[in-house]
Amino acid sequence: MLYAVIPAGGSGTRLWPLSRAGHPKFLHPLTGTASSLLQSTVDRLGPLTTPERTLVVTGAAHVAAVARQLAGIPEENILVEPSPRDSCAAIALAAAVIAEREPDAVMGSFAADHLIGDPAGWVATVRAAVAGAEQGLLMTVGIRPTRPETGYGYLQCGDPIPGGPLRRVEEFKEKPATEVAEGYLRSGRHLWNASMFVWRVDVFLAELARQQPVLHAGLTTIAAAWGTPSQDEVLGTIWPTLPKISVDYAVMEGAAAVGRVATVPGDFGWNDVGDFDTLGEVLPADEAGNVVLGADAAAPKPGVLLRDSRRLVVVPHSGRIIAALGIADLIVVDTPDALMICPRDRAQDVKQLVDELKERGEENYI
Amino acid sequence: MLYAVIPAGGSGTRLWPLSRAGHPKFLHPLTGTASSLLQSTVDRLGPLTTPERTLVVTGAAHVAAVARQLAGIPEENILVEPSPRDSCAAIALAAAVIAEREPDAVMGSFAADHLIGDPAGWVATVRAAVAGAEQGLLMTVGIRPTRPETGYGYLQCGDPIPGGPLRRVEEFKEKPATEVAEGYLRSGRHLWNASMFVWRVDVFLAELARQQPVLHAGLTTIAAAWGTPSQDEVLGTIWPTLPKISVDYAVMEGAAAVGRVATVPGDFGWNDVGDFDTLGEVLPADEAGNVVLGADAAAPKPGVLLRDSRRLVVVPHSGRIIAALGIADLIVVDTPDALMICPRDRAQDVKQLVDELKERGEENYI
Repeated sequence: MLYAVIPAGGSGTRLWPLSRAGHPKFLHPLTGTASSLLQSTVDRLGPLTTPERTLVVTGAAHVAAVARQLAGIPEENILVEPSPRDSCAAIALAAAVIAEREPDAVMGSFAADHLIGDPAGWVATVRAAVAGAEQGLLMTVGIRPTRPETGYGYLQCGDPIPGGPLRRVEEFKEKPATEVAEGYLRSGRHLWNASMFVWRVDVFLAELARQQPVLHAGLTTIAAAWGTPSQDEVLGTIWPTLPKISVDYAVMEGAAAVGRVATVPGDFGWNDVGDFDTLGEVLPADEAGNVVLGADAAAPKPGVLLRDSRRLVVVPHSGRIIAALGIADLIVVDTPDALMICPRDRAQDVKQLVDELKERGEENYI
Repeated sequence: MLYAVIPAGGSGTRLWPLSRAGHPKFLHPLTGTASSLLQSTVDRLGPLTTPERTLVVTGAAHVAAVARQLAGIPEENILVEPSPRDSCAAIALAAAVIAEREPDAVMGSFAADHLIGDPAGWVATVRAAVAGAEQGLLMTVGIRPTRPETGYGYLQCGDPIPGGPLRRVEEFKEKPATEVAEGYLRSGRHLWNASMFVWRVDVFLAELARQQPVLHAGLTTIAAAWGTPSQDEVLGTIWPTLPKISVDYAVMEGAAAVGRVATVPGDFGWNDVGDFDTLGEVLPADEAGNVVLGADAAAPKPGVLLRDSRRLVVVPHSGRIIAALGIADLIVVDTPDALMICPRDRAQDVKQLVDELKERGEENYI
């Protein structure tokens, strides 16, 4: 049975002021349901694994909130990063801890803050990836692109591997320019890199040792101390020395270059909820195209009054009434201590506001 | 010496949600100074009269706030309307009360919620109007139009009266269509009706008796009881029976038709602060044309972060940070329990939001 690892990091600055350093995106019920993105991620894993085999890796600031939201996950499965060291250290820590329990276990790593429209389709895709992982491949889940998106990385695939849905990954591609993205869309050989990985922990750790010996050595030492009285001391000493690098750069690109990476193309309504515009695309809209977060399209929130207004994304999160008159294509995010307004096509630039607040020393709003 | 009357009524629904039924426009320091519009109105009267000769007519809901804002005005000069009966009843009540004190006094009526850019120029204009009133004319102060405004009424003037700045008013004109307003602007014979009036109280009351005998009879009875133990009983009985009509319709139009109305054209930077767009026109803007209410243009409020944004009118009134990115020509009004966003060219329609809130039964936001 699969081990599931959920890296729960990143503050989601493009979702400011809803998402904050202290209360990041994955802790929010962004889908209009009662569940946070993190809880939805765990719920989605139901058919694939158990709470005992589900691990969350998160920052010290969020452990308490994660522990409360995921009451069914054993405490020892909530791994605390003393400081952010990017995704390779986080995922490798989980892999090393799992390897201590079961050296040839298959693990999958799934972000805490993505939306999946078709959970059953997703489960079937992950199962196919598990089959590939059992053969010793480092598996990714690729998303068949539906538009020439410039905000994602891509996987460049080889021909299908006979006998199944797997395709070899030839190369990881950076976020492309528009024309390049249009070429990817036409090629039929490019998939969005959704940063979902499935592999045998021994295969992954061997590849880590080959490409990132410092990271591997540090994590082996940490994993050996895990669950012993010296755990915190060893973690606190070694963690800050680990290279800060993403797992894509650190391991997957180099593994693809030597033919060890494959992918299962998926079509399950994936969305990374990277910004408010994206969020507006996936949530139900009213007749005028307005999306009100937390509102049922059929029964809008009483505290939101939209008159002659179209294609808004409104996040009413302060309890105040929001009245809009004659506006269109805007994002309005209303929280108890901060209000943010921008056009939907500037949604990616919201992080500039966060940067500016940092420069001004207004840390309490970040 | 002039008696000054300040009708302080009207909730200013086009300035919602800053202006509320319970805290209307005239109580707000809309000019960026510490003084409310009402206080500025009284301050402006300094060269013309004394607190003892200044009367305010206001609704029961606002008496306490008015009394506190105008600590120098004697209590007996704050007249309470038991219910709103439009401007004729309010102004005639003050006229009748003044006539009890001094039957041939000259009084001027000046709205509580207008802005005057050049107070000294305004004082000179009013002095000229007082001279006309002393000759027995019902005087208005007209504003020389600077644009083909369709939101104001107009005074149509005859030729100048020899020997002074006065011009006979031939006719009161309703708010015109754009083409008509353009004709008015070209004519040189049309002035904006700023609803500022100056007259001898005996002349006004005689004209009221001629045109509005019911109103006149009721107010004469109320004025006779004023200051006696039966004041409240008489006021409470008669006031609700008075016709609800503006002083323009009730008296001035009919008086103009028989040649009893004149005007002094004024150029003193008058603004009725009717809506947020108008407010944006009169307050200082930053380099990008953004106006932040209560902010000095040179030193913007720390709680307002405007990035790539132009020609906004921002009213930060909740203590929260307001972050705008890439927006233009919008009004953003942020109060503790309500947020309003609309384009500047829809500023007049903000009252539609108030109407909709009323229909929904959301009276607590109005």
